[in-house]
Amino acid sequence: MALIDLSKRIALGIDVGGTNTKYGLVNHRGEILEKGSIKTDDYPEVEDFMNALYEKISPLITKYCGEKQFEGIGVGAPNANYYRGTIEQAPNLQWKGVIPFAEMMSEKFSVPCKMTNDANAAALGEMMFGAARGMKDFIMITLGTGVGSGIIANGQLIYGHDGFAGELGHTIVKPGGRKHWSTGSEGSLEAYASATGITITAKKMRAEFPHSMLNSYKEEEIDSKVVFECAQKNDEVAVEVFRYTGQKLGEAFANFVMFSSPEAILLFGGVIKAGDFIMKPTKLHMERNLLPIFRNKVKLVFSELDEADAAILGASALVWEK
Amino acid sequence: MALIDLSKRIALGIDVGGTNTKYGLVNHRGEILEKGSIKTDDYPEVEDFMNALYEKISPLITKYCGEKQFEGIGVGAPNANYYRGTIEQAPNLQWKGVIPFAEMMSEKFSVPCKMTNDANAAALGEMMFGAARGMKDFIMITLGTGVGSGIIANGQLIYGHDGFAGELGHTIVKPGGRKHWSTGSEGSLEAYASATGITITAKKMRAEFPHSMLNSYKEEEIDSKVVFECAQKNDEVAVEVFRYTGQKLGEAFANFVMFSSPEAILLFGGVIKAGDFIMKPTKLHMERNLLPIFRNKVKLVFSELDEADAAILGASALVWEK
Repeated sequence: MALIDLSKRIALGIDVGGTNTKYGLVNHRGEILEKGSIKTDDYPEVEDFMNALYEKISPLITKYCGEKQFEGIGVGAPNANYYRGTIEQAPNLQWKGVIPFAEMMSEKFSVPCKMTNDANAAALGEMMFGAARGMKDFIMITLGTGVGSGIIANGQLIYGHDGFAGELGHTIVKPGGRKHWSTGSEGSLEAYASATGITITAKKMRAEFPHSMLNSYKEEEIDSKVVFECAQKNDEVAVEVFRYTGQKLGEAFANFVMFSSPEAILLFGGVIKAGDFIMKPTKLHMERNLLPIFRNKVKLVFSELDEADAAILGASALVWEK
Repeated sequence: MALIDLSKRIALGIDVGGTNTKYGLVNHRGEILEKGSIKTDDYPEVEDFMNALYEKISPLITKYCGEKQFEGIGVGAPNANYYRGTIEQAPNLQWKGVIPFAEMMSEKFSVPCKMTNDANAAALGEMMFGAARGMKDFIMITLGTGVGSGIIANGQLIYGHDGFAGELGHTIVKPGGRKHWSTGSEGSLEAYASATGITITAKKMRAEFPHSMLNSYKEEEIDSKVVFECAQKNDEVAVEVFRYTGQKLGEAFANFVMFSSPEAILLFGGVIKAGDFIMKPTKLHMERNLLPIFRNKVKLVFSELDEADAAILGASALVWEK
């Protein structure tokens, strides 16, 4: 009887984005053996996309994997459904309707394929290879153009009855508040705490305060990066933009903590580059909205995964998920 | 080798309340073989309480259980911690500090003892014996003097890293809103949607509307039952009290759904007797705050367990929990 050497098992991690699709062969220790990418939007037809992907990846599998070593494929994608293995009505992809993506991949590559949304994949990646190693209860929040989330409880991803759990960016933090540019909901976390939300806040506030350094930029130049630069130069309005954002984030975090009582909230994405400008008010307003039994327990932790690799690692972790 | 007849396994379910403690011997089908109660507040010392409980229950165990049939004890109690088996700083109990309740019970009765808070126990009870049979993802909300909750995801109770998960009554639904009479937090769900919260809303609204039937009652007579009676008699202010409460409840439910995507939200407790007066606005405001992918999927279901027995059944379910 041949023993299987666990350290030699290899998975393919794929991160499907609106513009680019990144892929990498990953071993059981979370090392990326080789990676690459193709342009998602070059392929209006999903079949052509899959053929192009196979053409690129198939030689790598031959190069790195002996027999039985190639275990499977994990895919992180927007609006991906874990149970059905589908991408459903993704607004940022050209492929419309319900795409049976996992089944198509599995047939093409002759191995099992699992998929979930990008933030869930990131949470799994952090648990297996990143800052959440050893944690059984934590929440992953990605603060980028949007606000994504993945929830781990009892050591498992929470998928919910339909595979769509963990849309914390769309929870309402201010009933009747700012209208979301895409969902139309009023007062959702994403409307305030995403890079897009921060830009909106900055544009409003600079109009109120003519002395702000933010007014030395053109309207289309204002983004969260510019706000950060102004905050570093002690512009009090830019500082206030992050304080306000942190307050909304902290209030939302308090509610998340009273839901699943995580050991930590892991943060990932461009917005966290604002560091203390956003994290100090976040922490303050989280703590003050918590019941005493939850106070001073929850860690706010930055992701340890390299930003360029996190999505691939996270997706590959799906293959090894219990 | 003797086979164990599963249908003959028996558990002791105990529900510790501030005034009364109810207990019952329960078989694996959820039938209560015999039950009783003692006055919790007759015993300022927990040791005396436990002795009194043992004196009452020990004869029942002898009567109903043969050798190896008595499997264990499950306890639902306020501020109970699942991991530590403790009751911690419970404001409604006379026993102060941290009580190692499960260990004491286990020594006294010579069987394992598990415990959790009352709402978690109720959720388990519904999953094993009630309206949530067969469901793997649901949320239990108890609407009584307070608002309690238990969350089941992937077929398991969510305890969180410290055993205190599922305090949804204390999540903030209106930042800076009504101050909670006991926790001091501002705008929590419990401040609006508990029987206590409804009473506060009713007192405020009747002061604003002198023509309301609610003004024919003395201040101390106003409670959620009186509001219900007035609503049934078409008093528009009483109807508005429930509409307002339902709005807050619905907004909170939308956030819960986007967290764990449950198949159903199960409702239990005195407040749900208000029926459509509260449930119609709850449903409306839940749906309108949900992302489209979650809409018209989540069932709002009333508990099927007999109110008098639910707490005992729920506690006993801890013994059989995986």
